[in-house]
Amino acid sequence: MTTAPRVRMAPDTRREQLLELGVRLFAHRSLDELSIDTLAEEAGISRGLLYHYFGTKREFHRAVVRRAADDLIAVTAPGDGGTPLERMTGSLERYVDYVVANREGYLSLVKGAAGGNEDMREIYEESRAALTDRIFASSSEAELAELGLDDTASVRLMVRGWAALTEEVVLSWIADPGGLSKQQLLASLARSLPALVNTL
Amino acid sequence: MTTAPRVRMAPDTRREQLLELGVRLFAHRSLDELSIDTLAEEAGISRGLLYHYFGTKREFHRAVVRRAADDLIAVTAPGDGGTPLERMTGSLERYVDYVVANREGYLSLVKGAAGGNEDMREIYEESRAALTDRIFASSSEAELAELGLDDTASVRLMVRGWAALTEEVVLSWIADPGGLSKQQLLASLARSLPALVNTL
Repeated sequence: MTTAPRVRMAPDTRREQLLELGVRLFAHRSLDELSIDTLAEEAGISRGLLYHYFGTKREFHRAVVRRAADDLIAVTAPGDGGTPLERMTGSLERYVDYVVANREGYLSLVKGAAGGNEDMREIYEESRAALTDRIFASSSEAELAELGLDDTASVRLMVRGWAALTEEVVLSWIADPGGLSKQQLLASLARSLPALVNTL
Repeated sequence: MTTAPRVRMAPDTRREQLLELGVRLFAHRSLDELSIDTLAEEAGISRGLLYHYFGTKREFHRAVVRRAADDLIAVTAPGDGGTPLERMTGSLERYVDYVVANREGYLSLVKGAAGGNEDMREIYEESRAALTDRIFASSSEAELAELGLDDTASVRLMVRGWAALTEEVVLSWIADPGGLSKQQLLASLARSLPALVNTL
């Protein structure tokens, strides 16, 4: 009988840990600043090993941003209790908290997407679609009606506009709150969606 | 007495003509596709002469985009007649018409600005500020009240959000109208601003 091999971390687990570290670093860095070198230094491992896990710098970036976007989608999932408006306000609050805590990385995703980085664009569009489509997918017809929504093309167009407004207002509010408390901001954004659909 | 010199176009006039040609080409091209070579070919003059007028490719791009942004600001200036809401709707209509007619160049400006091109960002921010600040600058207090607006930091925050919404909705509507006529779109966008401010 040979000696049992030393217990080693499975490669998937190791990659997972490195990915989580990458996401934490991404919170306060732009994509340009998120280098394999930085991650290698923070993780205390060689660049070669990182290339082993992630292939290329581009793959590494894609994996980190994809994970960050998945985190955002997960953390903003509407809860179970309360009225549709309360659930939307809760979801918005977690969105605002996420953007406050991950401002650099989030801005980098937004800029990368708009600036023509195809990977970033794909992930950004997917996550924005997930965030807005969820309003329709996770609500019954009666609940949608309570928010003043029905599932038509023009309402979906306005929901896209509302998502752009929310992103702009939240990023501007973080830079300069203009006398608005977080609760006032959230209440205003939540009321905005039915108000906008009502203009159709 | 010497012979009068042959009438020549003044250099400023020539530069002006070339700039206008650049803006026309920019309507259907991204910034990346708007090269000195293309302009030289369209204008039937040498690349050398173009560099003489514009210095560098970067200066040429900056001049074209600055002029395009000035055109947009000029064309969307609110008219004189009618109620504040009618004037805003007229201004919005000219904005939509401009974006329809200059979609590629406009998208390129938006993407360049968001993607971290500092020149594009500066011009984009200036023109967006001009478009939104004008609502306050060109209206009396009574007219602002008629639109449901007053000039506070939180209202200005919401006006920024409305500008982002308008840009997103108009670009999405051009790609897929979702059953909305242009008049319906305009009416909805014009009503959106007071509706949004009302949520504060």
